[in-house]
Amino acid sequence: MVSAATETKWVYLFNEGNASMRDLLGGKGAGLAEMSNVGLPVPPGFTITTTACIAYTTSGGVFPPGMWEQTLKALHAIEQATGKRFGDRQNPLLVSVRSGAKFSMPGMMDTVLNLGLNEETLQGLSALTGNPRFAYDAWRRFIQMFGKVVLDLPAERFEAILDEAKRTAGVRLDTELTADALRHVAERYLDAVRAETGKEFPRDPFEQLRLAIEAVFLSWNNPRAVAYREFNKIPHDLGTAVNVQTMVFGNLGDDSGSGVAFTRNPSTGERRLYGEILFNAQGEDVVAGIRTPKRIDELEVEFPVLYQQLVEIANRLEHHYRDAQDIEFTIERGKLYILQTRAAKRTADAAVRIAVDMVGEGLITKQEAVQRVEPEQVVQILLPRFDETAKAAAIAEGRLLAKGLNASPGAATGVAVLTADKAVEWAHRGRRVVLVRPETNPDDVHGMIVAEGVLTARGGATSHAAVVARGLGKPCVAGTEALNVDLEASTFGVDGRILHEGDELSIDGTTGEVFIGRIPTIDRPFAELTDLRTLLGWADEIRRLGVWANADYPRDADRAVQFGAEGIGLCRTEHMFFEEERLPVVRQLILNARAAQAELERVEALPASERPAALAVARQHEAVRLYREAIEQLERVQTDDFRGILRVMAGRPTVIRLLDPPLHEFLPRHEDLVRRIEQVEREGSGTDELAELRATLATVEELREANPMLGLRGCRLGILYPDIYAMQVRAILNAAGDLIAERIPVHAEIMIPLVGHVNELKLVRERLEAVARDVQEKRRLQIPYQFGTMIEVPRAALTAGEIAQYAEFFSFGTNDLTQMTMAISRDDAEGKFLLHYVNRKVLPFNPFQQLDQAGVGKLIALAVQEGRRVKPSLQLGVCGEHGGDPASIAFFHANGLDYVSCSPFRVPVARLAAAQAALSARERDR
Amino acid sequence: MVSAATETKWVYLFNEGNASMRDLLGGKGAGLAEMSNVGLPVPPGFTITTTACIAYTTSGGVFPPGMWEQTLKALHAIEQATGKRFGDRQNPLLVSVRSGAKFSMPGMMDTVLNLGLNEETLQGLSALTGNPRFAYDAWRRFIQMFGKVVLDLPAERFEAILDEAKRTAGVRLDTELTADALRHVAERYLDAVRAETGKEFPRDPFEQLRLAIEAVFLSWNNPRAVAYREFNKIPHDLGTAVNVQTMVFGNLGDDSGSGVAFTRNPSTGERRLYGEILFNAQGEDVVAGIRTPKRIDELEVEFPVLYQQLVEIANRLEHHYRDAQDIEFTIERGKLYILQTRAAKRTADAAVRIAVDMVGEGLITKQEAVQRVEPEQVVQILLPRFDETAKAAAIAEGRLLAKGLNASPGAATGVAVLTADKAVEWAHRGRRVVLVRPETNPDDVHGMIVAEGVLTARGGATSHAAVVARGLGKPCVAGTEALNVDLEASTFGVDGRILHEGDELSIDGTTGEVFIGRIPTIDRPFAELTDLRTLLGWADEIRRLGVWANADYPRDADRAVQFGAEGIGLCRTEHMFFEEERLPVVRQLILNARAAQAELERVEALPASERPAALAVARQHEAVRLYREAIEQLERVQTDDFRGILRVMAGRPTVIRLLDPPLHEFLPRHEDLVRRIEQVEREGSGTDELAELRATLATVEELREANPMLGLRGCRLGILYPDIYAMQVRAILNAAGDLIAERIPVHAEIMIPLVGHVNELKLVRERLEAVARDVQEKRRLQIPYQFGTMIEVPRAALTAGEIAQYAEFFSFGTNDLTQMTMAISRDDAEGKFLLHYVNRKVLPFNPFQQLDQAGVGKLIALAVQEGRRVKPSLQLGVCGEHGGDPASIAFFHANGLDYVSCSPFRVPVARLAAAQAALSARERDR
Repeated sequence: MVSAATETKWVYLFNEGNASMRDLLGGKGAGLAEMSNVGLPVPPGFTITTTACIAYTTSGGVFPPGMWEQTLKALHAIEQATGKRFGDRQNPLLVSVRSGAKFSMPGMMDTVLNLGLNEETLQGLSALTGNPRFAYDAWRRFIQMFGKVVLDLPAERFEAILDEAKRTAGVRLDTELTADALRHVAERYLDAVRAETGKEFPRDPFEQLRLAIEAVFLSWNNPRAVAYREFNKIPHDLGTAVNVQTMVFGNLGDDSGSGVAFTRNPSTGERRLYGEILFNAQGEDVVAGIRTPKRIDELEVEFPVLYQQLVEIANRLEHHYRDAQDIEFTIERGKLYILQTRAAKRTADAAVRIAVDMVGEGLITKQEAVQRVEPEQVVQILLPRFDETAKAAAIAEGRLLAKGLNASPGAATGVAVLTADKAVEWAHRGRRVVLVRPETNPDDVHGMIVAEGVLTARGGATSHAAVVARGLGKPCVAGTEALNVDLEASTFGVDGRILHEGDELSIDGTTGEVFIGRIPTIDRPFAELTDLRTLLGWADEIRRLGVWANADYPRDADRAVQFGAEGIGLCRTEHMFFEEERLPVVRQLILNARAAQAELERVEALPASERPAALAVARQHEAVRLYREAIEQLERVQTDDFRGILRVMAGRPTVIRLLDPPLHEFLPRHEDLVRRIEQVEREGSGTDELAELRATLATVEELREANPMLGLRGCRLGILYPDIYAMQVRAILNAAGDLIAERIPVHAEIMIPLVGHVNELKLVRERLEAVARDVQEKRRLQIPYQFGTMIEVPRAALTAGEIAQYAEFFSFGTNDLTQMTMAISRDDAEGKFLLHYVNRKVLPFNPFQQLDQAGVGKLIALAVQEGRRVKPSLQLGVCGEHGGDPASIAFFHANGLDYVSCSPFRVPVARLAAAQAALSARERDR
Repeated sequence: MVSAATETKWVYLFNEGNASMRDLLGGKGAGLAEMSNVGLPVPPGFTITTTACIAYTTSGGVFPPGMWEQTLKALHAIEQATGKRFGDRQNPLLVSVRSGAKFSMPGMMDTVLNLGLNEETLQGLSALTGNPRFAYDAWRRFIQMFGKVVLDLPAERFEAILDEAKRTAGVRLDTELTADALRHVAERYLDAVRAETGKEFPRDPFEQLRLAIEAVFLSWNNPRAVAYREFNKIPHDLGTAVNVQTMVFGNLGDDSGSGVAFTRNPSTGERRLYGEILFNAQGEDVVAGIRTPKRIDELEVEFPVLYQQLVEIANRLEHHYRDAQDIEFTIERGKLYILQTRAAKRTADAAVRIAVDMVGEGLITKQEAVQRVEPEQVVQILLPRFDETAKAAAIAEGRLLAKGLNASPGAATGVAVLTADKAVEWAHRGRRVVLVRPETNPDDVHGMIVAEGVLTARGGATSHAAVVARGLGKPCVAGTEALNVDLEASTFGVDGRILHEGDELSIDGTTGEVFIGRIPTIDRPFAELTDLRTLLGWADEIRRLGVWANADYPRDADRAVQFGAEGIGLCRTEHMFFEEERLPVVRQLILNARAAQAELERVEALPASERPAALAVARQHEAVRLYREAIEQLERVQTDDFRGILRVMAGRPTVIRLLDPPLHEFLPRHEDLVRRIEQVEREGSGTDELAELRATLATVEELREANPMLGLRGCRLGILYPDIYAMQVRAILNAAGDLIAERIPVHAEIMIPLVGHVNELKLVRERLEAVARDVQEKRRLQIPYQFGTMIEVPRAALTAGEIAQYAEFFSFGTNDLTQMTMAISRDDAEGKFLLHYVNRKVLPFNPFQQLDQAGVGKLIALAVQEGRRVKPSLQLGVCGEHGGDPASIAFFHANGLDYVSCSPFRVPVARLAAAQAALSARERDR
């Protein structure tokens, strides 16, 4: 045993270790060793190893042989390095003692500062600082800290004494107590220790050190630490190291000070030392904010040598850690000490600039640069946002009106309008408007298009307002429960605070905040964001996943392309239906669809010879006439729509989804209709209107469904009303044909939604292939197109092999797939139980923001595998909101999808995330 | 080649073959050979082999060497056996020629009868029958048939000639044409053949035979036959055989005749020859129904020897085929010929009796008996049903009022009542009532319980009415679109036919028919169905799957046990909530739940020391008081409920599902509330009622969901309102405890519904285990219980391995699992697109009646596998409606489930189906 003890090294001076020794020295010890090795002026110290801790705890509380001797030796080395002596009354060496395991563990003992103090060394400290108050404060703090963490006394005991002292002195803050008062407190603390432990507080610094080391060792097995390890699956046999380090003081005169320095500006990323310093002050004074610190430039003026030394250290640290650093330093009597360095927190702008600059400086590779920026930070750069100072001022002025759901990010400011028509009217007169509604419906879309942003009182993150706003890239605050919108009075507000239509309003869709009045926004065009574009260019070189966008209008498609989208993964044709001038036509279609369809089916059932005559008669039928007329009108406008979007995409793949939502979404709400009918009846006016309203009501009732999500929509509509899909395909093919005639390349992919059984796809596709052939024959033109389907019904994923036989591509509609797989109707659930679930950790995260890999992801993986097995050429993409979520993108990359598609604003996010996914996968494979 | 030809046998006399030679002789030929071998008096004949067909077609249309010679030789053997001669003018041998492949193929040539006829042999036929009209009719039919199927002439050509002859004769039916007229028709037919083919109709019988054989051979490759084989995946190289058989005539005098005989009575199963005979008539005359046939007993009277011969043949056939037979026979001049025999079609009653009797007779094994009855037939035996004759009479009298959805099978008759209260009132006065409603809701359940049956105007097969009726085992016709129910006038009807409350009404839930007036029903107690019980007893010995029942009330449980249920797989506690006297308490619970829960959570969040005082205050809070009061009341009644059902089950496993439906189902409908509020407001009365109505409306609006199926229900309720589940578990445990005290065995399994994520189950179970411990400690009694979950959310199936860690059992809720996996809301879909889908074969069957194995089944298989992997002891069952469907039961058996649970009435069906599944599986494994 003796020979083993003499051989084992239990104690390492900081300059004896390095960053790779985390197992033995703990994370903190290895970090301090690394800094020392880089040659930084770290206050000298040493680390007692984790193996010493294990030896101590397993032996039942005995220091392993030789450990204490090595400790004393290391302490002596420190004394030599600092010229101070432990326990010396003139120039006392004071130390900090800290625990430090391999993994950071909040459950363990934290820190004891100023160890080595007692009534005598205290005098030395007082003399050295010329500040008796500081010395007494340090002394009473030391007793309190040591009492609590080493002697395990209740914190309340000390708090009570301090409170009483303040009461006696008639002051409110600790800092207002005089040196005398603090001395008195320290004495009462010592009494308390005696009373609680039955022993004197240890005055001998060596005794203090021994006890502190034992306390750190024992803290490894305290219940909180054990529970923490259980929860985080950290092994129990690692042990903790103990770090003993010289205390340095920034308050030893005007040639002393404490500060924080960033190697680059954390707001802008500019490569210039940035930070603050407080002369003749301790580090905690900087944090406490009692005195206003000076800019780091002052150091250059007053102590140019020290400043130069700091700049050199900053450079050395950046080169060593290959990242911008946030450095804590202290100057003790003209000598610079580095207390800590870590990767600097930074704004999104700074993150991008630093990453790009460092590549330019040859400090990091492009791959590393791509990994240095959080994809979500990119959103912050792109979206218009409020000037933070102005926003803070608005809050201070009490202009925060309410808080709703952050349904679509970005900031908007303008005058409030309460109807869509008014929004259009005012916008056309050149005013910036914010549309405020109890909730929105298809009737409001024309107003949403012209508005800067949308505010609603009701509806969740997939309410109509939220979905349309996200699609339009407009900020939206939804479900603002406290908000009252009085349409009759044209006012809105919260409690007593009433605003009128025309009042200025600002909404922050990123935070859900609603402000009275105007707040200036910051908005920079993507073209001007040179660093970001450089970074994303590197990302594009790295990523394998394609990045496409969801866009319904040419202007969105255009924006998406500018943001780097390589295709459109989802063009929702129904949004085109919702536009104001089209809605009456769409309604004409729906109100006559059933009667017309029945009539046409009757003709179909006749013997072939009788059909032509019967068809001619049927076409005179009112419902059939109106139905066909509506179809023809819609075909004209849809052809324009598709021509517009395909022209912008100029040969890039463009996935157009055929009509998907249940038809009742295009009709007025049941309650509104009933109310209106009652009103007209009461007033006894408008028999024409009444008849129309009643007909509409009858259709609305006919179309009503208990669970529309699982109802008559998607390809089910296409099967029951074949004319609608046929019209859409004619419009797509003709639009493509027109462009081909103009020698503009076209790549249209036609997507059939809500397929659950292969027969649905087979039937619809067969019918539509005939339509496509027909258009091509009429135009005598070969028009390229593909058919594919959305995988959004669980059954489609489960039978993907069958479905792949009839599809050239799959696009995973992860929104609906999540709703059905988890049985969660997002709109309903968000307010009712989903947030509760996420808050209480029943669900680890909101599955509509981040893909549920264990459940929904399993279906996707299965569908990818089965689909590719049957058809290796199958193109696979994602068009749900998860297509823009970095964690989900990593999953899609890992599962071999071809592309993700997301809203235009998230395209840059996805480009970056896709590159990071590729890099992580490479690292894992290595 | 010559030597091969002399060696190959191309032609087999019937008595040279047997049943195993289907490849060579085709199905029909092998059957005829088999009958001949049994020694039946089959009209003599022979079969030309399938290999001859292949040789003919592959050689480009040449009979293989020796085939024709063998044919002539076989023909000669027939002549000798019959004493007739082919082409003989006195006693001509006439034959039929039929195709017959290994598999029945409707695409091929069918039959030519009376081949061998010409102007001369025709005279012999005329003389023999003494019926020139018959002879001429046979002649013109032969030309027509031969012309069409052998010479390939258009059928219209012959039809036109016949039509003209009828016009000329001024008659409407073929049978009204005289012998002369028919002769004329035959002549014109011959003209037509000459005109169409440019040749004479072949008069030489041998030429006729050769041509007919060639036509059969060629028909193997006609386009319809090829397409049929393609579709049915039948190989193209099998070829077809040709069957040539002596024609026999039942119309050669009073010692001749034709008839049909069943070896046992096909209605009752009685073992006695049953059938009909028409003397001096051909078989087609029996079918045509022009003359009324006599009962087979007449044969016994008039020709006892022939009758005895027939009885012997019947016995021999039953022994040979080991099943009851349906025999076609002809007597030609006192000689009995058997033309065909096949398994007899039979009623459900007969099927059971025959199967059981045959086991008694040693004819078949118990296993075979079990396979002889279709499980669905058992339902027909069990349900009350209308007397068919009386029903036919009612239809004839025009008493069929309307047709709706056959939502719950069985027949009911009684007086119509239009409200649930009236139903109870009248039923208590001893009247049998049928409840007629526009649709039902929880308020109507007390009326449904006392009614004989339920009729609604609206709602699909899973509407409230349908589900509750099926649960209660009551007939229900739902969604009777044509029906108008006028509650104010207390009338109902269709178009102009108005009925009043109190009028008699009959509904057939098996067919969806609604009749005016009373129709007598037939209803037999299960205890009296001795044969069925015997058969099911054998099924029980064979099956591996357990058969449990879904039952919510003690009386249902009792019935289920009588039907042989071994446990309860689903006891829905919410149905107990719906009962009339409880609904107000349930509503009190719901109206105060949110406020009370918020209050209780506020207290929970306080420091531990403040909680007791705060709780005391909170309990004085109005909402909390009412909430707790309702919980306590419900606990009392639920304890009674559970005691009742557990007592009946007496130790059999009983799965009790905790509250599942969204709370709004217990509240009045939104529209009704709004209407009522407006009414009360208009009348200016009842401010108390108004306040209550408004409070209810507010809660209804708060609970409203766009897609309640995917909303706040199941364990989500249990998590948000922990008191409700805690109350239910206390009630279950206390009920069990009471029974244990009475020494009655108890086996309660507590099922947590709608789990999608393991954390849900974990959280709820942990809370409820505490409650269970609490009850046991209070009672100082060990009470056995288990926790498990319903697998009805796709995600639960996908993550079954995780979930199994916290469940002792899984019960597959295949109804909801199907809805979510296929994205079909059953209620909405059935009327809107599902029936269309099934009719047009977009879906192969209704997935709510038969399990979708490819999609939903895949999830179940996955969950079984993962669940058992993690916990081998996991108990697996099914409680969706598929648990009673035979095809689905076979799937559940194959996938290793432990039991199926279905409505009590289907328990016998499931017992039989489970046994059949086991037998099929054994056969496959063999």
